[in-house]
Amino acid sequence: MKILGIDPGYAILGYGVVEMRGSRFLPCDYGAITTAAGTALPERLKLLYAELMDVIARHEPDAAAVEELFFNSNAKTALLVGQARGAAVLACVNSGLAIHEYTPLQIKQGLTGYGRADKVQMQAMVRTILHLDETPKPDDAADALAAAICHGHSAAYRARVAHTKGIAR
Amino acid sequence: MKILGIDPGYAILGYGVVEMRGSRFLPCDYGAITTAAGTALPERLKLLYAELMDVIARHEPDAAAVEELFFNSNAKTALLVGQARGAAVLACVNSGLAIHEYTPLQIKQGLTGYGRADKVQMQAMVRTILHLDETPKPDDAADALAAAICHGHSAAYRARVAHTKGIAR
Repeated sequence: MKILGIDPGYAILGYGVVEMRGSRFLPCDYGAITTAAGTALPERLKLLYAELMDVIARHEPDAAAVEELFFNSNAKTALLVGQARGAAVLACVNSGLAIHEYTPLQIKQGLTGYGRADKVQMQAMVRTILHLDETPKPDDAADALAAAICHGHSAAYRARVAHTKGIAR
Repeated sequence: MKILGIDPGYAILGYGVVEMRGSRFLPCDYGAITTAAGTALPERLKLLYAELMDVIARHEPDAAAVEELFFNSNAKTALLVGQARGAAVLACVNSGLAIHEYTPLQIKQGLTGYGRADKVQMQAMVRTILHLDETPKPDDAADALAAAICHGHSAAYRARVAHTKGIAR
């Protein structure tokens, strides 16, 4: 199963594609789509959508894992980031991908078993799981890979539960 | 010039298409795209995008006017509505439409010359300008028509200013 992870943002959108073979994860690709400050938002959304469509066309993932965003206070930022997230979700859904959403807490727990893991711990975990020599850069790409791995674990867990239920019948 | 106005929302997205001939406005079409509560957000975004693409294909507008949204406090709502707005903006920009953004204040001033006009006054103005027998329903469609008319006025004003500057040279 090939999974596309996405960490949404309008200035920088992280993506990561991993392949899951059994319980092993192989990195396929990761990086960030950036849009220049001062560019009008419609143009930024167009670019994010087009480049993400290109990533999907290149790797043909089976599913997408998108980080859920939370904002405590700044509604203006939430509105901007929301539009970028909308563009990312649309690129996936218009490509026929099933979309799975995970909160930052779920992603942290899925990777480290610990909801309060910090950024450095999370990046070390991503590097270890994917057998990478270096921590994926930028941070947004590492976060996107973490979302993809989280979905892989989650899908494997659900498959085991379904199998166990089948046996118990 | 044919203008598509949009009042973004994830449960209900208002649209209105008007044709501007000289200083007159003719209504071409208006309505609302609705998505059912309980539907997953990616599916809602997909539907909004697809239906708006369909409206654009049917009417082939020359420009789009999208209402700018403001939220004072609720970042969670802003994030949701932002994603719907992103889908609407993407449908326009992926169709090659120039997108013009107007604040609610600008739209009110553009239609009634008065930034504090209430909903009833605005809807009466839309009805009068478009020579409609009834107030367009739902409210979101009337708001979308108002945005389209606002852009028509604004474009005509800019054209006059450009013309005057040309004469003054």
